[in-house]
Amino acid sequence: MQTRSEITHEGIMKAAVAEFSRSGYDAASVADICKEAGVSKGAFYHHFPSKQKLFLAIMQDWLKGIDKQLFSRRSPDKTIPEMIQDMGSTLAVIFQVASGQLPMFMEFMIQASRDKEVWSAVVAPYRHYQQRFASMIREGIEEGSFREDTDADETAWALMSMAIGILLQGIVDPQAANWEDVTKKGVQMILDGLKRRNE
Amino acid sequence: MQTRSEITHEGIMKAAVAEFSRSGYDAASVADICKEAGVSKGAFYHHFPSKQKLFLAIMQDWLKGIDKQLFSRRSPDKTIPEMIQDMGSTLAVIFQVASGQLPMFMEFMIQASRDKEVWSAVVAPYRHYQQRFASMIREGIEEGSFREDTDADETAWALMSMAIGILLQGIVDPQAANWEDVTKKGVQMILDGLKRRNE
Repeated sequence: MQTRSEITHEGIMKAAVAEFSRSGYDAASVADICKEAGVSKGAFYHHFPSKQKLFLAIMQDWLKGIDKQLFSRRSPDKTIPEMIQDMGSTLAVIFQVASGQLPMFMEFMIQASRDKEVWSAVVAPYRHYQQRFASMIREGIEEGSFREDTDADETAWALMSMAIGILLQGIVDPQAANWEDVTKKGVQMILDGLKRRNE
Repeated sequence: MQTRSEITHEGIMKAAVAEFSRSGYDAASVADICKEAGVSKGAFYHHFPSKQKLFLAIMQDWLKGIDKQLFSRRSPDKTIPEMIQDMGSTLAVIFQVASGQLPMFMEFMIQASRDKEVWSAVVAPYRHYQQRFASMIREGIEEGSFREDTDADETAWALMSMAIGILLQGIVDPQAANWEDVTKKGVQMILDGLKRRNE
């Protein structure tokens, strides 16, 4: 069961996501967030020393969620291409979670481009994802699924780029395509390109 | 030669890009832009009826530039895969132009998510790019370069997703990888996946 303090903590974070999405990071004030969450300023500062720390906490939470969704499905009875294909389906779930949170997602990027501390907090986990992908691809080469001349690092970045691009497009223009199908097809194309041909 | 009016027009747009990048769209005032451009408010409103119209003009200009860079290289003596590979190299040029303009790029997205008029102005040219890509891929199927079961629309979206993701990552974290190589490799992988195998 959650303690009263945990409920307040989560309530502030939820209110902040709503406020940041609506008004933007700069315009959203601690007073607005407190009002939305129904807490006093005293309670707010008991949980978060500043608006920026709150912002970073939201981001960490979000990235941790993605990490858990993407990399929790490792199963030893599947080949690497099968696992990567599964991750493509997971992306569809991330979409649904992210829908309506475009402004928030964008805020992270803007703040990262303006603030060194936020930048590090965005970029570190991001590079970490790439490394996890790259090791998967190396495993795929070892198990004989992928061509031996595959560059694991560049392939990992290319896969991540596609995922991020699809995420972004799916949020900005959800009606333009069946983004779930685009994801599956895109991942399949890349995997086909990497596949070892049996000569 | 440019007329005095054209020089003023461009000066205001340039100043606005600097201001929007530095302070964000909401915080940047017409007064600040005028000061940066060295023009009077009268001159400003002679050229742009509002800050929003100026913003839209900058965006149109930017998208037109990308369109010209990407689709101007059609040459009849090249196969479609060769042409798509060339477009990958063009992306590297777009990078260099875009570097330092992340906040501006993000502003477009945020404003689009909040404002119907901006949204249409972002999404329309964007869908147009996808259609141009899709017709190229259809030509590639017809000329026998790509497998006949290739879904041109989904492939076009997947290629665009990768391009956008690379652009975004290259701007946020330029040091993480050689983005030019990632682009080439990523495009090559997708093309390999689409290639007709000679059975």
